[in-house]
Amino acid sequence: MQTAHIVFDEIGGKNATRVTKMRSSKVRDLFSAAVRPDIISLSGGMPDVSLLPAASIRTATRNALDDDAERAVALQYGATNGHVATRQVVCDLMRDLGVRCKPDDVLLTSGAQEALDLIAKCFIDPGDIILAEGPTYLGALQAFSAYEPDVRCIDFDDDGMRMDLLEAELERIGKGNPRLKFCYVIPNFQNPGGVTMAPERRKRLLELSREYGFLVLEDDPYGRLRYDGGHMIPLKVLDDRVVYLGTVSKVFAPGLRLGWMVAPADVLSRVNLVKQGADLCGSSLDQAVVRHYFTDTPWERTLQTFIKTYRVRRDAMLAALEEHFPPEARWTRPEGGFFVWVTLPEYVDTDSMLGAALEAGVTYVPGNSFFPDGVTGRNSMRINFSYESPENIAEAIRRLAGVIDERLELYRAFIKAGAIKVDPETRAAIESYRERAEKTGAAAEEGE
Amino acid sequence: MQTAHIVFDEIGGKNATRVTKMRSSKVRDLFSAAVRPDIISLSGGMPDVSLLPAASIRTATRNALDDDAERAVALQYGATNGHVATRQVVCDLMRDLGVRCKPDDVLLTSGAQEALDLIAKCFIDPGDIILAEGPTYLGALQAFSAYEPDVRCIDFDDDGMRMDLLEAELERIGKGNPRLKFCYVIPNFQNPGGVTMAPERRKRLLELSREYGFLVLEDDPYGRLRYDGGHMIPLKVLDDRVVYLGTVSKVFAPGLRLGWMVAPADVLSRVNLVKQGADLCGSSLDQAVVRHYFTDTPWERTLQTFIKTYRVRRDAMLAALEEHFPPEARWTRPEGGFFVWVTLPEYVDTDSMLGAALEAGVTYVPGNSFFPDGVTGRNSMRINFSYESPENIAEAIRRLAGVIDERLELYRAFIKAGAIKVDPETRAAIESYRERAEKTGAAAEEGE
Repeated sequence: MQTAHIVFDEIGGKNATRVTKMRSSKVRDLFSAAVRPDIISLSGGMPDVSLLPAASIRTATRNALDDDAERAVALQYGATNGHVATRQVVCDLMRDLGVRCKPDDVLLTSGAQEALDLIAKCFIDPGDIILAEGPTYLGALQAFSAYEPDVRCIDFDDDGMRMDLLEAELERIGKGNPRLKFCYVIPNFQNPGGVTMAPERRKRLLELSREYGFLVLEDDPYGRLRYDGGHMIPLKVLDDRVVYLGTVSKVFAPGLRLGWMVAPADVLSRVNLVKQGADLCGSSLDQAVVRHYFTDTPWERTLQTFIKTYRVRRDAMLAALEEHFPPEARWTRPEGGFFVWVTLPEYVDTDSMLGAALEAGVTYVPGNSFFPDGVTGRNSMRINFSYESPENIAEAIRRLAGVIDERLELYRAFIKAGAIKVDPETRAAIESYRERAEKTGAAAEEGE
Repeated sequence: MQTAHIVFDEIGGKNATRVTKMRSSKVRDLFSAAVRPDIISLSGGMPDVSLLPAASIRTATRNALDDDAERAVALQYGATNGHVATRQVVCDLMRDLGVRCKPDDVLLTSGAQEALDLIAKCFIDPGDIILAEGPTYLGALQAFSAYEPDVRCIDFDDDGMRMDLLEAELERIGKGNPRLKFCYVIPNFQNPGGVTMAPERRKRLLELSREYGFLVLEDDPYGRLRYDGGHMIPLKVLDDRVVYLGTVSKVFAPGLRLGWMVAPADVLSRVNLVKQGADLCGSSLDQAVVRHYFTDTPWERTLQTFIKTYRVRRDAMLAALEEHFPPEARWTRPEGGFFVWVTLPEYVDTDSMLGAALEAGVTYVPGNSFFPDGVTGRNSMRINFSYESPENIAEAIRRLAGVIDERLELYRAFIKAGAIKVDPETRAAIESYRERAEKTGAAAEEGE
């Protein structure tokens, strides 16, 4: 893999300003580490495509390519906004979520990632204000950063983005501020947080969007991957001005780059114009295969297999966290999606800890990757449970706990000496954990 | 198809500045007209994918998807710069052209169009200077325009970009000007010009690039589609600092979005970084199918079929132009590629003439689409010969000649009256054409 590290060299002076401000993705950079067999990766965001039945893939590709007329379409340039038959399939998928739309309301993109880039390209001038959850999807931060916005992050809790903090930020920004462009949210099983936005907060967000005059960009890659609890109504259902982003990456396969945008006509016309220059059109082959996958195969049964499998893996991760992680750690308990968000004491720097973790045979994504400043969130991390087996997940968490534990030793000594103040409850938890750990350590030594 | 026309509406104030400066593509807008059965399209740039053997497509897709391990790769996210095995295939294709490179020198893109966007994103700040042939590929102008450059167009003749004009422009820009970023050229069978850059001009361009300090961006979608004459050495062979863009769109199929960039490491590292935010990675499925197409099928024989077929169509177009077009028209005689460039008297506005052409059942692309100001080139047009049958091409040219002839009537009357001065040769040609046309017209009336 080509390294994304910028070398200052003979063309250094030719760089556009935006490039000097962009950062590489830790997830992408770790991609090669993820394929080393000795390392268990909790860093990616990959679905387990081995769960896809070979027969379904065969059916979808055969039906896309065997007929002469269909094959000619699958091999030819297509319309910039995508083939109408595939956009119709997207409408059918959206109807399941409660969103009513027609093919004209849909624009197909090369994964939802391209949609993020195109929206940013359409709306962001340097210095414009974008609101987002903090932490948020790092791919969104990368897409936006090319257009040099001022991204303001709003903290979340177990009910998603905190509306009190959003409102306070909006008051600072002011009503009708022309620099305020949109608010980017992942309401379901947020990446990297794993949390879901509660219904009353969804309503409040939309009220605020009308009051302060900003677009709402709803990114929903994981919405169909719910392991507990009931369906939540998408923002798009509550307000038709919302720009909704979907993708087949997590319900079918990310190797076919197919995402979509359901948006008002005035937004789509801009995006369509910008997409012409970006890539002319998406892959006609991918569009044809996706269409036949969702038309000619038992994809809903396969989706249930995804859900069942990921639920077991999530449970394995949460159980391992309970068992192995130190009492100072806090983590989210997602009802769906791919990720758990772990918060450690301020003292711990997960970015610098990554080397030790790699040595111990486990990867994760340092929390600061998910903040626009690259600094906030250094004491947190994102861990993924969708890709590895439950056994591997348990082992990875055990390894990771060991690495964290080592880092916490000094911290604990300070607390014991009274040099760092903590509440009595935490102190008691740490004490009991230390006693337990010492016993286990002694037992392990005896076993040698 | 979603119209790309910008509606001024409630989100008008939210637009990024760049969007207000972008223009829609006439070619893309005409896409829907092209599929109306009564219209013969000379406006597109589509290869004839019906020439691809069904068996080759079956072989390539089966080999990409039947094996469990390969299928898992084809359905999963890939590295941002593309799968190494497919990059190796690109190296093999490049070797045929005389370019020696390794997979590390190659980055795969979603068609060469994405490469244009990424390069522009990496290098262009608003106001930066880009050099290009004028007219040039309108998709490049669209890609660049999103980053608000100052594009300076250099005229071409039958030997490609005129180096005397380039040198004069460079003198105005000045040596070591930090605003001068790159020169974009299509040396083989230029789009829309159809002309090929002569070997001595290629050398001179590279000398000037070193003297004035700019990158050379060599776009070569048509290089393998040569119908007469011998292979020309690519700029990339003459200077390793050149950024070379290739694509499978014209030698295999554009429905699989697969282009590539062969470039120095410092350029690739920037592009890789920018591509992460743009789309994470390209289609793994497309990459797998392309790899197997160029490994497991008789693709060189298929390429010969393309070449033979397009040669016949080009000849049909040139013959029809000779037969039907008025003497005031000038056109290029391409040795390869897809396009002929027609220049009419200044008097004729091909942009406003398009409506009449559509009524007569033929489409073309008005020449002003290929200039950044959208004004220059209004008396010219691009016509395509790759997609329609020779019979349809002849008929389309006949229809188009009728439309042009109508427009020229007034012009001829002015010349006859001496109100417009032309050289005696042109005047004689027009006179003899008129006599001939009157005879043919009389004969046609008698035949009714």
